[in-house]
Amino acid sequence: MPESFWTDPLMYQGGSDSFLSPGDDIPGQPDWGVDFEGEIAVITAAVPMGASRDEALSAIRFVMLCNDVSLRGLIPGELAKGFGFVQSKPACSFSPVAVSPDALPGWRDGRLQGVLKVDLNGEPFGRADAGIDMTFDFGTLIAHAARTRDLAAGTIIGSGTVSNKLDGGPGKPVSDGGAGYSCIAEQRMIETIEAGAPATPFLQHGDNVRMWMEDSEGQSIFGTIEQKARMTQP
Amino acid sequence: MPESFWTDPLMYQGGSDSFLSPGDDIPGQPDWGVDFEGEIAVITAAVPMGASRDEALSAIRFVMLCNDVSLRGLIPGELAKGFGFVQSKPACSFSPVAVSPDALPGWRDGRLQGVLKVDLNGEPFGRADAGIDMTFDFGTLIAHAARTRDLAAGTIIGSGTVSNKLDGGPGKPVSDGGAGYSCIAEQRMIETIEAGAPATPFLQHGDNVRMWMEDSEGQSIFGTIEQKARMTQP
Repeated sequence: MPESFWTDPLMYQGGSDSFLSPGDDIPGQPDWGVDFEGEIAVITAAVPMGASRDEALSAIRFVMLCNDVSLRGLIPGELAKGFGFVQSKPACSFSPVAVSPDALPGWRDGRLQGVLKVDLNGEPFGRADAGIDMTFDFGTLIAHAARTRDLAAGTIIGSGTVSNKLDGGPGKPVSDGGAGYSCIAEQRMIETIEAGAPATPFLQHGDNVRMWMEDSEGQSIFGTIEQKARMTQP
Repeated sequence: MPESFWTDPLMYQGGSDSFLSPGDDIPGQPDWGVDFEGEIAVITAAVPMGASRDEALSAIRFVMLCNDVSLRGLIPGELAKGFGFVQSKPACSFSPVAVSPDALPGWRDGRLQGVLKVDLNGEPFGRADAGIDMTFDFGTLIAHAARTRDLAAGTIIGSGTVSNKLDGGPGKPVSDGGAGYSCIAEQRMIETIEAGAPATPFLQHGDNVRMWMEDSEGQSIFGTIEQKARMTQP
């Protein structure tokens, strides 16, 4: 990984025209490698071009959860073309509730502290803390996007997939006592490192993914994203 | 260039939140390499995921011109990161008028035949025909974007920079009797091939770019994009 990845955010531009509702099926085809990605996302007020990190931070109006769907089978071909994701990042979904930062006790310095709970087919898959190991805070991410243009009110910025290291190295599955993962690809990568090949398949027809976050009393903060994969033959 | 570039559209996802008006200044900094790109763009009705080329073609509601601004100085760094353009493709502008395809005599098979006139500081810079050498018609481009997701009504798809070959090779500047270019980068590339180095600078503070298209009676079809570069110091 280039050293610059720790100082210069790696950001892509996603579609903003059509989203999935938090209960919508995720449409796909069997060979597309459909994956979920659990993220935190923010909605901004208008951000002027060239805004500083602090100005960007103060423009955040709402925080929510995001299932930033990826089509892993289509990513290598698109990255090889050099212009980034188009087909491989389809419509994503957001939590039913968005919350203003001042109503979130876990909101600190542009990051949301709190465990993003991800279940796959009713089993715990991810329990990673969104405030840990987030390389760039949201102020820095927004300022990066606004460097060369104004951002309109309503702009959505995602955190990237929530992921926690374990003792400086890769984490462990929830079933092994770890914090698990917020996308299947990361679990497959760990499986590949440890066993030479991935064991967990990407989403199959009918697979169910749930994402939510609880406050200190166990109350759901953003409601629940709960989606089934719906595969159609090409 | 990979052979697949003739069969698989190379498309990127641009910002859709804030645009420039057709008379707005183009904001930039001297070292950003601010360039214009003259394009044709279409606005679609809703396009369902998986739409065919013909279905996509019939969803086109309006055609217009686009100045798809590029920041050439920022492109290499972003392409090297592998996730495509974010900062290097800032807000673009569109012609003041959009026209439905059935009112355009030059509209044929998903392409617009007609000379896109581009002047730089009052001198002819580009006179290339938008219907010639457009590798993929708009139906194919829209179907590519809609392969893995629905496109909302109002989706804008650009043609890529209008450019004409000359006898199978690169064109010539208008001042040499050629059709010229619809962006500065292409003229610089030709200069580099012919003289070893580019001679035409990217936009300087106060430079003026105009884009328009005329019908067979010399009437402007889409009105005029006319913008000045406004450079600020970092």
